[in-house]
Amino acid sequence: MSTYKLTYFDVRGRGEVIRLVFAQAQVEYEDVRILPAEWDSSKTDRSRFPMGCCPVMDLDGMTMMQSMVIARHLARKFGLAGNDEKEMTMIDMMSDLCTDMLNEMFELIFEKDAKRKEDMTTAFAKKSETYMSVFTGWLEKNGDDKGFLVGNTVTLADLALFNLLEQLSTKHADILTKNPPMQAFLDRVKVEPNVAAWLEKRPKGEMDI
Amino acid sequence: MSTYKLTYFDVRGRGEVIRLVFAQAQVEYEDVRILPAEWDSSKTDRSRFPMGCCPVMDLDGMTMMQSMVIARHLARKFGLAGNDEKEMTMIDMMSDLCTDMLNEMFELIFEKDAKRKEDMTTAFAKKSETYMSVFTGWLEKNGDDKGFLVGNTVTLADLALFNLLEQLSTKHADILTKNPPMQAFLDRVKVEPNVAAWLEKRPKGEMDI
Repeated sequence: MSTYKLTYFDVRGRGEVIRLVFAQAQVEYEDVRILPAEWDSSKTDRSRFPMGCCPVMDLDGMTMMQSMVIARHLARKFGLAGNDEKEMTMIDMMSDLCTDMLNEMFELIFEKDAKRKEDMTTAFAKKSETYMSVFTGWLEKNGDDKGFLVGNTVTLADLALFNLLEQLSTKHADILTKNPPMQAFLDRVKVEPNVAAWLEKRPKGEMDI
Repeated sequence: MSTYKLTYFDVRGRGEVIRLVFAQAQVEYEDVRILPAEWDSSKTDRSRFPMGCCPVMDLDGMTMMQSMVIARHLARKFGLAGNDEKEMTMIDMMSDLCTDMLNEMFELIFEKDAKRKEDMTTAFAKKSETYMSVFTGWLEKNGDDKGFLVGNTVTLADLALFNLLEQLSTKHADILTKNPPMQAFLDRVKVEPNVAAWLEKRPKGEMDI
């Protein structure tokens, strides 16, 4: 049997979407959380971290990199990537957009120049409205605005959006307040049994991101 | 029959990898190149550009966004995405890494602050060595360092790497000079019949990126 070993920092960041896929599929894996001191001494080990980055996932002698590549791989295997080419493409597009917005949020968090941070904050607020309205539109189009993004079961797209919204909720709660369908979606996925079980048992993490 | 309509700017940028997939698969499509004046007046049209961004691809009433989502969709349809799950994941990872490096190159091009640009240039040079050595390693591992990245035919991974290297060659030619296997790969893919035919007939484009 294949053994999955995921290595990432002890934060949600770019790794949590992968952990959510494992949780939803109820598949066991090794959730290795590398601490700063260990990272400093091991990030140049190219056999473990070929690009000097995390997350990586080891499986049957293969080291996978890039959070969404890993998430897509697992989603295909675990039946969370769509039932046909059209669904697969929609799910891929939605997940990729979540990653883009998450990346923009991270850039904002790590920006040190005050003036630049101010401009980025304004741009992020504006752009976030576009993201939220696009996702709200997709939810509405896929039924009664009370379900999931694609089809009628949880897919990678829902987990990616849930992850984005959960991370936004700690740093940009106003975005959720302004977009009730997004808050409702967050609340809905939060109580999906497999997601809820993970939220209950997951480590608190080194930082609240 | 499905009609593919790709809308992007009149540059290579983030759109060329999609054009290369069409070229390699020899599939007809509408290559719409939107000019700055038209873009200014149409980018807020959410029915054409849901996120206010390019590229988009219209197909059977669906508007796809995100360059690599579109490229992956087409690659799956046209048999350029790998023959099994392992190949598919490798190709996905390699293509995604090319996109990351391309994005870093674009950020550098568009950076206006001189000091910041200098720091980014240093970081980019260092990071590029890691990228190039990782790709060189994959090429060596997949045979005799004279072929392709995965299997023995052109896949999306080869087109993505070709696109990256071609774009690097106009702005960062030193990277290719320092990495002969990458220059050799660029030269090799350039003469693949379908790629060569596209390079011969493609519009020169508004800018050399």
